Amino acid sequence: MTLRIGVIGTGAIGQDHIRRCSHALVGSTVVAVNDINQEQAAKVVQQQGIEAEVYASGHDLINAPEVDAILVTSWGPSHEEFVLSAISAGKPVFCEKPLAVTAEGCKKIVEAEMEHGKRLVQVGFMRPYDQGYRALKAVIDSDKIGEPLMIHAAHRNPTVGESYTTEMAIVDTLIHEINVLSWLLDDQYVSAQVIYPRKTSQAFAHLKDPQIVLLETAKGTRIDVEVFVNCQYGYDIQCEVVGERGIAKLPEPASVQLRSGAKLSTEILMDWKQRFIDAYDVELQAFIDGIKAGKITGPSSWDGYTAAVTADACVAAQRSGAIEPIRLPQRPAFYE
Amino acid sequence: MTLRIGVIGTGAIGQDHIRRCSHALVGSTVVAVNDINQEQAAKVVQQQGIEAEVYASGHDLINAPEVDAILVTSWGPSHEEFVLSAISAGKPVFCEKPLAVTAEGCKKIVEAEMEHGKRLVQVGFMRPYDQGYRALKAVIDSDKIGEPLMIHAAHRNPTVGESYTTEMAIVDTLIHEINVLSWLLDDQYVSAQVIYPRKTSQAFAHLKDPQIVLLETAKGTRIDVEVFVNCQYGYDIQCEVVGERGIAKLPEPASVQLRSGAKLSTEILMDWKQRFIDAYDVELQAFIDGIKAGKITGPSSWDGYTAAVTADACVAAQRSGAIEPIRLPQRPAFYE
Amino acid sequence: MTLRIGVIGTGAIGQDHIRRCSHALVGSTVVAVNDINQEQAAKVVQQQGIEAEVYASGHDLINAPEVDAILVTSWGPSHEEFVLSAISAGKPVFCEKPLAVTAEGCKKIVEAEMEHGKRLVQVGFMRPYDQGYRALKAVIDSDKIGEPLMIHAAHRNPTVGESYTTEMAIVDTLIHEINVLSWLLDDQYVSAQVIYPRKTSQAFAHLKDPQIVLLETAKGTRIDVEVFVNCQYGYDIQCEVVGERGIAKLPEPASVQLRSGAKLSTEILMDWKQRFIDAYDVELQAFIDGIKAGKITGPSSWDGYTAAVTADACVAAQRSGAIEPIRLPQRPAFYE
Amino acid sequence: MTLRIGVIGTGAIGQDHIRRCSHALVGSTVVAVNDINQEQAAKVVQQQGIEAEVYASGHDLINAPEVDAILVTSWGPSHEEFVLSAISAGKPVFCEKPLAVTAEGCKKIVEAEMEHGKRLVQVGFMRPYDQGYRALKAVIDSDKIGEPLMIHAAHRNPTVGESYTTEMAIVDTLIHEINVLSWLLDDQYVSAQVIYPRKTSQAFAHLKDPQIVLLETAKGTRIDVEVFVNCQYGYDIQCEVVGERGIAKLPEPASVQLRSGAKLSTEILMDWKQRFIDAYDVELQAFIDGIKAGKITGPSSWDGYTAAVTADACVAAQRSGAIEPIRLPQRPAFYE
Repeated sequence: MTLRIGVIGTGAIGQDHIRRCSHALVGSTVVAVNDINQEQAAKVVQQQGIEAEVYASGHDLINAPEVDAILVTSWGPSHEEFVLSAISAGKPVFCEKPLAVTAEGCKKIVEAEMEHGKRLVQVGFMRPYDQGYRALKAVIDSDKIGEPLMIHAAHRNPTVGESYTTEMAIVDTLIHEINVLSWLLDDQYVSAQVIYPRKTSQAFAHLKDPQIVLLETAKGTRIDVEVFVNCQYGYDIQCEVVGERGIAKLPEPASVQLRSGAKLSTEILMDWKQRFIDAYDVELQAFIDGIKAGKITGPSSWDGYTAAVTADACVAAQRSGAIEPIRLPQRPAFYE
Repeated sequence: MTLRIGVIGTGAIGQDHIRRCSHALVGSTVVAVNDINQEQAAKVVQQQGIEAEVYASGHDLINAPEVDAILVTSWGPSHEEFVLSAISAGKPVFCEKPLAVTAEGCKKIVEAEMEHGKRLVQVGFMRPYDQGYRALKAVIDSDKIGEPLMIHAAHRNPTVGESYTTEMAIVDTLIHEINVLSWLLDDQYVSAQVIYPRKTSQAFAHLKDPQIVLLETAKGTRIDVEVFVNCQYGYDIQCEVVGERGIAKLPEPASVQLRSGAKLSTEILMDWKQRFIDAYDVELQAFIDGIKAGKITGPSSWDGYTAAVTADACVAAQRSGAIEPIRLPQRPAFYE
Repeated sequence: MTLRIGVIGTGAIGQDHIRRCSHALVGSTVVAVNDINQEQAAKVVQQQGIEAEVYASGHDLINAPEVDAILVTSWGPSHEEFVLSAISAGKPVFCEKPLAVTAEGCKKIVEAEMEHGKRLVQVGFMRPYDQGYRALKAVIDSDKIGEPLMIHAAHRNPTVGESYTTEMAIVDTLIHEINVLSWLLDDQYVSAQVIYPRKTSQAFAHLKDPQIVLLETAKGTRIDVEVFVNCQYGYDIQCEVVGERGIAKLPEPASVQLRSGAKLSTEILMDWKQRFIDAYDVELQAFIDGIKAGKITGPSSWDGYTAAVTADACVAAQRSGAIEPIRLPQRPAFYE
Repeated sequence: MTLRIGVIGTGAIGQDHIRRCSHALVGSTVVAVNDINQEQAAKVVQQQGIEAEVYASGHDLINAPEVDAILVTSWGPSHEEFVLSAISAGKPVFCEKPLAVTAEGCKKIVEAEMEHGKRLVQVGFMRPYDQGYRALKAVIDSDKIGEPLMIHAAHRNPTVGESYTTEMAIVDTLIHEINVLSWLLDDQYVSAQVIYPRKTSQAFAHLKDPQIVLLETAKGTRIDVEVFVNCQYGYDIQCEVVGERGIAKLPEPASVQLRSGAKLSTEILMDWKQRFIDAYDVELQAFIDGIKAGKITGPSSWDGYTAAVTADACVAAQRSGAIEPIRLPQRPAFYE
């Protein structure tokens, strides 16, 4: 059985997922596309050499009988309506982050999905599909380091453009740590604080960079994440889990070790797209396989919702300088 | 277009490739299988849940009209005849190592293929498809370390069974280095010498272990490979290329770094099957994609032939203790 | 010229320094000792095979004409009076930490020394004499990483005894980071906050362990120090300086790399005494050489004073949970 | 008791040792110096600010009653006569390598010393005093890796001058491995072979560089040493001991780890003088302490002799291309 996929949004990431589902993954084919720019959608179909119908409306695509599942890769603010529409149609939907641009919007999706009675939504958080994070979680779950007490993490980019704002450090950058660290710890957040170190001279005037975000979880684990988006030297993701009896650290990406010019060195990636490139394949394959197996297991709309609430608290903490509470209900059994 | 594959030999590696071509790779399906034990072949078809015809004869399978390409994963001594049969049929064939059990047999295949006029054969050397070796080759080709002058390599297994003989250190173990190092250097071998260090007490009495094999290439590059198949501590593949201006080293497999029990450690694999597991997928995908693109690019029957000649010289060197010449013709333009 | 040293306090560290000044360092000899337990002092003289007079009074030792310089290694609460006495006598004095048990006491020493008109006091902070920290400072000062913006540090012990209190995490443990990080950054602290992560089950009931201390400097650099004194796995000192263009990390102590039992590992020390053992020699040699050169350059009474004020603020932050200001005057020119 | 030392030869290394024995080590003073250039000797005395008599004759210096021990740091060909003279005088003598320029010369020294009846000679091989090699030996001796079966080693310099000859790769460079590896293994050599890889374009025309030296020990352990003196990238000493159950590797010198410019790097030394700088202090302190304790324990004239015989065989192997036997008598009990 080949899963017939409809894709809403044919920008950069949409095109990349169309390529994956058409040429790289097993068991899927793209049969329908839609974009706010219909010509662009048609062009993508042609460029990728696929046989897919171009729909003028995302909702029509969702409801088309030949479409088994939907990928939402459109403009962020449109995610909520398309995901809700897919749930109405009772079709599985993979939605790139954010699930919705407000926590309230995410909550609506959670409620609609629960009412439907079965998971339909997978959110495009790819880090839980990264081999490194999976190996790290395996070490934690094996009890080799005992109960986790702290996480020291960093999310660093070489540079960002002028349009990148202080708030985006949370909603675009930290959002991945918000997702992956709660998954890693199997825990949720209860408070957030943001600290502004001395500002780098390499950032635009309007941007506070770097920032340190302090998160506390329900079990009391403390997390510090350095977000530094003009660090110059590389795209570098660090994660160190301090447990009661030992410390486990996310692997550095494998790299040739060089002895050259008085240095013993390995490479650090400069391009974020390379860092989790394999994880994108794995997450979408999991979505496809999950649908076929009748059980979607990846990041859920609940995860999307709690990430949104947590991000809101972090943004509040950016503004207040205070420790902001994160008020989340218990994870419903539906999402366990 | 889905490539319809016939598989000859349904033992462990055959089953693994059937699984790949049916469930893990893109663009192929297994439509026919054969095994010397026909019941076993039928059982595999059933277990893997595929729709494939069981052929009583490998040659019939090769000539079946619904079979586009052949995988030879049968008993080593049978490889030669099946590959020759596939060439006669003008069908692409992927043959697990060895291509043939004698250099002479390999040569016959080379001649048959050249007479056919187009490459049909890919030999199952998977290391050139490993990400680490590819990264290493990219560094060499980028001239970051200058011209390669030496390679220090090691091939270590935790233990081997009693049936493993001194000669197998060459034909089963070193054979992978013979292949991958000549690919890495784009060079071929001209002499071999074997040195026997003090024998480990962990090996069976009949086995000389470890061994050091010294190879010389046409360009004068010198290679030392430690083959140590009872090293106890892990399955460990090392490769360090010393160039005129620097040294490049094969990456260690990525692993969580642990601080625990007075040690800062990463894991070393114990199971060889894990080490190049991704490379098997890549090599077979390349075979499938190559056929579709009309151009097979992987390890060729020429590579299989030269590996056989080199292995023969190494075995001679094991016995003589002397430096044995390796006499190889120039690589024909056909195989460049 | 051999510097004639008098030692007040012949406990463990006093004995160690007597050994150093008698047998390991160049240009010094121990001629006088004092201890609250006079018998113990006499025994140490005998055991170490030195010719030194045993004084009943520390003050008499200080004023003895044959004593050129004093080491104060007695009980902490007695440091202040002996250091002041040495300043009165116009003699150089090396005082183990703490310089005094209160910030006020340290301030009196600073004032006495400034009144004397020349530096006489070196405080026993040894980390600035550690090769690793010196190499780290050299990298920072070379501008290889640009201006420092953040420091991530950790101070971990395998275990502590029942007498170790929550406050000692600051005054006994963090005190070394307080000293060395301000030296590293050439900066002083302006605020402190303490965070309590989930408590380890490996600590005594009365002890909050681990703790995270957040420090802010005058230039805006932000420091987080994990203090974890029951981490089980080793005595581990980490320090990573994040600059505008790169990151520099304190070297791990050199260790044989082992491939063994499916692990690639180096050793982590378990015993804190081994970690900075060379630095003790270097700091005392610097004291001796400084006196001979007429210029004491090591950690000053000003450094002792500011460390005390900073530690007080950290202890206040432990209790309040709030961000506590650290109010320090400008470093006087006298101490630059 | 202060050991009164006479130094023969006031060139670069002589000056360095004079500085050590006068200012850096404990328990020694330089009271006499001699050089073939008497003015130079006088100048050194003045520059170093020491009170030492300048002798016109090395032999007179040796026999001077105020001289307790001798350092021979003169021109290599003069070592033999001065060491023999010191033995005649019954005085301890530290001789820089080579002990004598011929194996025969070394043997004469061995015989003279044995006739004297007590060890007087320490040869200036400093690597056994290096912390890294000592840690490596401790691991071997602890049986953590089982019996050593192989050593893979490398001795690399960034560049050498035009005067450096192919033979010097043995007698000046490999000589350190010859010494330290037999000490490490507690074993002696029985054969040598030299292999010439493709020559680097960075070496002078007359020099064969790199070279690989293969040594075999009495216990059957096999050693390969890459000698590469124009490797460009650094002064790099590698040593990996492969045992029956694991592998131990000489520590890299501790270095700040840097994340900068898309690289994760540590420094490799360029200047050989920095690599073993601490070991020079330790070896001379051991000589001084050994004399005082009545027992010289460092590298002996026997070690100097066997190194010379081994080096001779390696040079023969350079010329013959064959495996050359190394014929050494059993180590006399006198030297155990």
